[in-house]
Amino acid sequence: MNIGIIGLGSIGASLAGDWRQAGHVVVGVSRRQSTCDLAIERGFIDRGSTDLEILTGLDVLVICTPIADILPTLARSIAVIDPETIVTDVGSVKEAIVAPATKIRSNFIGGHPMAGKATSGIEAAELGMFAGKPYVLTPLESTPQRAIDLLTQLAIDLNARLDLAAPTEHDRAVAWISHLPVMVSASLIDACTQEQDRSVLGLAQKLASSGFKDTSRVGGGNPELGMMMARYNQAAILDAIAIYRQQLDRLEQAISTNQWAEVTAILEHTQNARPDFVKVPIP
Amino acid sequence: MNIGIIGLGSIGASLAGDWRQAGHVVVGVSRRQSTCDLAIERGFIDRGSTDLEILTGLDVLVICTPIADILPTLARSIAVIDPETIVTDVGSVKEAIVAPATKIRSNFIGGHPMAGKATSGIEAAELGMFAGKPYVLTPLESTPQRAIDLLTQLAIDLNARLDLAAPTEHDRAVAWISHLPVMVSASLIDACTQEQDRSVLGLAQKLASSGFKDTSRVGGGNPELGMMMARYNQAAILDAIAIYRQQLDRLEQAISTNQWAEVTAILEHTQNARPDFVKVPIP
Repeated sequence: MNIGIIGLGSIGASLAGDWRQAGHVVVGVSRRQSTCDLAIERGFIDRGSTDLEILTGLDVLVICTPIADILPTLARSIAVIDPETIVTDVGSVKEAIVAPATKIRSNFIGGHPMAGKATSGIEAAELGMFAGKPYVLTPLESTPQRAIDLLTQLAIDLNARLDLAAPTEHDRAVAWISHLPVMVSASLIDACTQEQDRSVLGLAQKLASSGFKDTSRVGGGNPELGMMMARYNQAAILDAIAIYRQQLDRLEQAISTNQWAEVTAILEHTQNARPDFVKVPIP
Repeated sequence: MNIGIIGLGSIGASLAGDWRQAGHVVVGVSRRQSTCDLAIERGFIDRGSTDLEILTGLDVLVICTPIADILPTLARSIAVIDPETIVTDVGSVKEAIVAPATKIRSNFIGGHPMAGKATSGIEAAELGMFAGKPYVLTPLESTPQRAIDLLTQLAIDLNARLDLAAPTEHDRAVAWISHLPVMVSASLIDACTQEQDRSVLGLAQKLASSGFKDTSRVGGGNPELGMMMARYNQAAILDAIAIYRQQLDRLEQAISTNQWAEVTAILEHTQNARPDFVKVPIP
């Protein structure tokens, strides 16, 4: 296939590299020529430009910009791309993107390749980043079958695990397992910093070890990215926080009323439930 | 020194092994003779018995039972140990232990060697488990200097990082960085299991990756241990949960009212604050 990529960050450049390795021809667009040059030098793309005009004759255009730029980028690209080019994105939220994007371009299909890398930029790009990782496609009723077929093939070429879901299903699922953890984890750090006794705070900082480190990791991540999750997945994340608070309240209530059997029962439930979410890695 | 250990689980047997290696004579008491035999075979202790009568001529007695058994074990041991033997414990909460223990035995000193291991039992014991890890002592005004001096030496023999704190300071610090994370993390798992749409729940389980895995780890741990933390550190953990909820409410409020600059500011604060708790390991 002929593939165009807009945005040569860690996701865009990594996708490009894998697809080029699978035998596709890949052209890239970045705001900076130096990024295009680096992407060519590293073998991620065949040709690159700062100009959208390069994006002709494509089977698929993949928009790999930050979430807030996806729709404006789509609107600008449709002036230059061929009418039959399938367009997709890699945004981590789908409902806020897919409905308006499909209005702009009927052969748009939402996509979310999940790499789970914290670092960004072309320097963080690498081959094989999506192997064994989920790649969610979120077609609508109106999405052309050809769009699903092409993206399915491209996901296979990455050795990714393909899933199909409605945009709202995707957004609710990632609210639970990706966006809610960020807010829960950030509030943990935030709460600890509220300790007014400086000797207790100092001791807490000294004693914190692997448990705190793991629980606080995603809450100490990129603030802009966390804000974007909340902004573009607002309804699902607010639902998730509301249910989260109910569960925390139930646990707090059990603790404050000395219902130790109930506290144990809650923690047995969570111990039993976790393995359904945390898979043993495939060797 | 002559050291006695009651409870040859992962903490007790590991302490015994390190201290024996440092040149001390260590005798151990376990409920099962087979555990004593294994501890001798592995070189953790010099002699072992199921009978407390073995605990004579000691400089220090270290009670390494689960939290709930510390005070009853202390009460039973004082009938057999020498009057001058210093007694300490390894419980992860201190206020609930130190005050009553000191009433039973004036030369008691609270201690908390923090290994951060999830597994338990003598099979999980190993040498060097406490090297570079915190060892908190919680002396009272009335605690004999000799108790502080002996335990300081024993912490040095483990290559542990010694900290002195009041029992309440210790308990508030561990509430923040150890006990609150368990409750926060457990409620995250619990909330996710409340999803009523089976296809969304299934997708969430498929898509969960490193972010969810880390944030949920301590909430999926030993239920009995989590309950004991709450039970014996009830006041501090309830305070911590209350402040945690305020911070979560503030974040939720900012999200629900579209205050994106405020959401970003909160996440910048947590990104900046986390390194004060999460140290780069000393090479």
